[in-house]
Amino acid sequence: MANARDAFNQYRQLDGKAKANFLESIAKEIEALGQELIHTAMQETNLPEARLMGERGRTCNQLRQFADLLKEGSWVEARIDTAIPDRAPIPKPDLRKMLVPLGPVVVFGASNFPFAYSTAGGDTASALAAGCPVILKAHPAHPQTSNLVAGAIALAIKSCNLHPHIFQHVHGATFETGKALVQHPETKAVGFTGSFVGGKALYDYAHQRQEPIPVFSEMGSINPVIILPGAAKAKAEQIAEQYAASITLGVGQFCTNPGLMLGVKNSDLNALTASLSERMQKIAPGTMLHTGISKSFYSKRTHALKQQAVKLEAQSATDEPANMGVPTLATVSAKDFEKNPVLLEEVFGPYSLLVQADNIEELKKAVAAIPGQLTCTVIGDESELAQHYDLLQLIMDRAGRVIINGVPTGVEVCPAMHHGGPYPSTTDSRFTSVGTDAIKRFVRPVSFQNFPEELLPNELKNSNPLKIGRLVNGKWEQG
Amino acid sequence: MANARDAFNQYRQLDGKAKANFLESIAKEIEALGQELIHTAMQETNLPEARLMGERGRTCNQLRQFADLLKEGSWVEARIDTAIPDRAPIPKPDLRKMLVPLGPVVVFGASNFPFAYSTAGGDTASALAAGCPVILKAHPAHPQTSNLVAGAIALAIKSCNLHPHIFQHVHGATFETGKALVQHPETKAVGFTGSFVGGKALYDYAHQRQEPIPVFSEMGSINPVIILPGAAKAKAEQIAEQYAASITLGVGQFCTNPGLMLGVKNSDLNALTASLSERMQKIAPGTMLHTGISKSFYSKRTHALKQQAVKLEAQSATDEPANMGVPTLATVSAKDFEKNPVLLEEVFGPYSLLVQADNIEELKKAVAAIPGQLTCTVIGDESELAQHYDLLQLIMDRAGRVIINGVPTGVEVCPAMHHGGPYPSTTDSRFTSVGTDAIKRFVRPVSFQNFPEELLPNELKNSNPLKIGRLVNGKWEQG
Repeated sequence: MANARDAFNQYRQLDGKAKANFLESIAKEIEALGQELIHTAMQETNLPEARLMGERGRTCNQLRQFADLLKEGSWVEARIDTAIPDRAPIPKPDLRKMLVPLGPVVVFGASNFPFAYSTAGGDTASALAAGCPVILKAHPAHPQTSNLVAGAIALAIKSCNLHPHIFQHVHGATFETGKALVQHPETKAVGFTGSFVGGKALYDYAHQRQEPIPVFSEMGSINPVIILPGAAKAKAEQIAEQYAASITLGVGQFCTNPGLMLGVKNSDLNALTASLSERMQKIAPGTMLHTGISKSFYSKRTHALKQQAVKLEAQSATDEPANMGVPTLATVSAKDFEKNPVLLEEVFGPYSLLVQADNIEELKKAVAAIPGQLTCTVIGDESELAQHYDLLQLIMDRAGRVIINGVPTGVEVCPAMHHGGPYPSTTDSRFTSVGTDAIKRFVRPVSFQNFPEELLPNELKNSNPLKIGRLVNGKWEQG
Repeated sequence: MANARDAFNQYRQLDGKAKANFLESIAKEIEALGQELIHTAMQETNLPEARLMGERGRTCNQLRQFADLLKEGSWVEARIDTAIPDRAPIPKPDLRKMLVPLGPVVVFGASNFPFAYSTAGGDTASALAAGCPVILKAHPAHPQTSNLVAGAIALAIKSCNLHPHIFQHVHGATFETGKALVQHPETKAVGFTGSFVGGKALYDYAHQRQEPIPVFSEMGSINPVIILPGAAKAKAEQIAEQYAASITLGVGQFCTNPGLMLGVKNSDLNALTASLSERMQKIAPGTMLHTGISKSFYSKRTHALKQQAVKLEAQSATDEPANMGVPTLATVSAKDFEKNPVLLEEVFGPYSLLVQADNIEELKKAVAAIPGQLTCTVIGDESELAQHYDLLQLIMDRAGRVIINGVPTGVEVCPAMHHGGPYPSTTDSRFTSVGTDAIKRFVRPVSFQNFPEELLPNELKNSNPLKIGRLVNGKWEQG
């Protein structure tokens, strides 16, 4: 951590173009690892080649998106209010403001995205883009993959002639490693994607420090999907097809996996359930990321299925070998759902629970019992959506992303994406971990009053040498 | 709090123009209270008429600034990424994002700004602007002033025909009142300005909740001022004049009061100290805000002055009656300062401690021992400022606002102002409590995926009925 502080004092002085060059070099070095990286990740994560190729592409794209953001430069929110020395009754001083990096950031690699949310993933890319050195705690499920990516980052540091400790790579499967990193006085922020238990523990450690620090834990979500009666009647087959695919996509190992569905019990919902069941029976189990995840899937699935009035509706007809996640659909009545908080717990894997309400009011009551989520979805025709606007409001209160007539899986990386949500889905609903806005997690504003031109950061100089867009005396000026 | 939730469900649906109208009505109703408000506040706070007239003006200006922000509308950060249905390999959905209000906000009125940071002050104005109902805990030092302002808000609610519980006014001098408000499940954020002990307690309560919530506590600051040797030599008299005034302004009862000065001990600094002492002896004590504050001033001043090697350098020559804050200057060596954390504690009132270092390196070491502050100031000529850029970096790490050759008192309300700072000056260095950016404390982003035009919030509709500036497919479009 002392090394990280030294690195920070150099790295923070780099301008956007120099940091962009570094991020682009990391992307190039990752690509230069070629098939060795893909094969190592395949061995360690059981993920198929095509998925890993796609994820590597996404990871390098993310790095390049942040590089573009840095080159464009206006993300620092530069604001300049020039002095009015002769203002009465008191003169107005020259004030300028911009975002500056917080300091060393500890990032915990996630197991379900071994590239895109691990060693050089979104958290690392956004922290480095902000100007913060990163201490990466490798995920113990893919240590060699993490070593390879860390090696690529080290090469990029060398080729850009930067401080060697801008990025540091730490292994350690115990809880104590993470705790020590989060509680070190030089750590200024934390990024984590994983379980509620893990993310909440880090959050608590951060608040027990003498100087509390922000912790961005993304802790999972059951991503409720509400199926309104009109839609169940009009397009049961289409919904069943979409959702059989969404529930089992990537063996259900996405944070936006639809783990909960809610509908009004009638013959249309029964038909939809039957079709969904039939489709899920036909989907073969897939190997999960690691034995820890598959063990946890089976223990949580078993626990959920033995809850009062929960019925196993369908499971894959294929016999599963060890480590495989079996597609599973269960049902329960809204009344039984509402009184049992166990049914709100995530069963991470290809599992979904369909809650059957007697009527729309009961359905709304069940929705009101659901805590914060990354996403909530409503399936309905336009007239019933408008009619149940209160339901839309209920789910807006509970989610970071609200979807109409779609599936929650598939997280588009674009300016309008928000990947976050009210507690307990994350520890801070105000920030996203996907997309370029993720950089905002690792900065704070500083005002500079009455600075001579030479001592101002380049972003705030009158001459605007970086040619960035700025708010000058209340008016937006293009760079 | 249940009433606040009901009010939220109505208030959140108001557009910017309707909320702006409400804020402007509050300003008008406060002005309509006329001299009764000023006289009540004079009696309760001991502040002079001119100061209170000015502060009332600032309070109404703040409300109108937020109204203007709402009418302009682009603060919601609307982002629209339209669908690409035929994109390969997977279609791109329509995604739109904007900031939405968090829910009911509990605000604790501050005693040192009975208008501008109390009942209808910056926290209330920014929460109401964001679309959050406010539960205002009145400061027990000015209950009648608070009642009058709360009455003005109630009239504005009536004249705008809004839900009566958009603003609720609570009295209660005990800690338990505040704790109950912060821990209520319907409370979604907290604003506080006051002592470290009070602010940290609220912060801890918020983190002990089942659903933790953001707490914005502004907990004071000693606002270090570093006087470099060249400046001490060139303009000792000018610095002494400026600082005698800044230390004693408003009987030292500003959060940006310069409670700590640091310089290199030599004949120039001695001359500056002598001049400052002489001036402070001539300044008469002033009546403090309430007996709690004056008692605390005397006990903290006594405690500070009896620390090892601390010397009372000067105090007002005028005998002070009870409740009056006596202008006080103390000195201590950098060596003694560094080893005694008591000297980092705020003595809220007209008190400053001048730390005398043997040389510039010792001065830098002393600065490195200082925790997070609202402001840090450096007084120096341009060549020595450039020479000691490491010192500027040290203070940037420790402050929300960095000032060169000025005084920290005087908080300009403008886009480039940041009033906040690293812990322990506030609980969240990423947000400001002064200026229109304060609204960002009470909102979070929500993404809307695949919404039909009629169900989108007005801010995100294709037709842009509010005519606000938005980022559409990566390009900024004026409204």
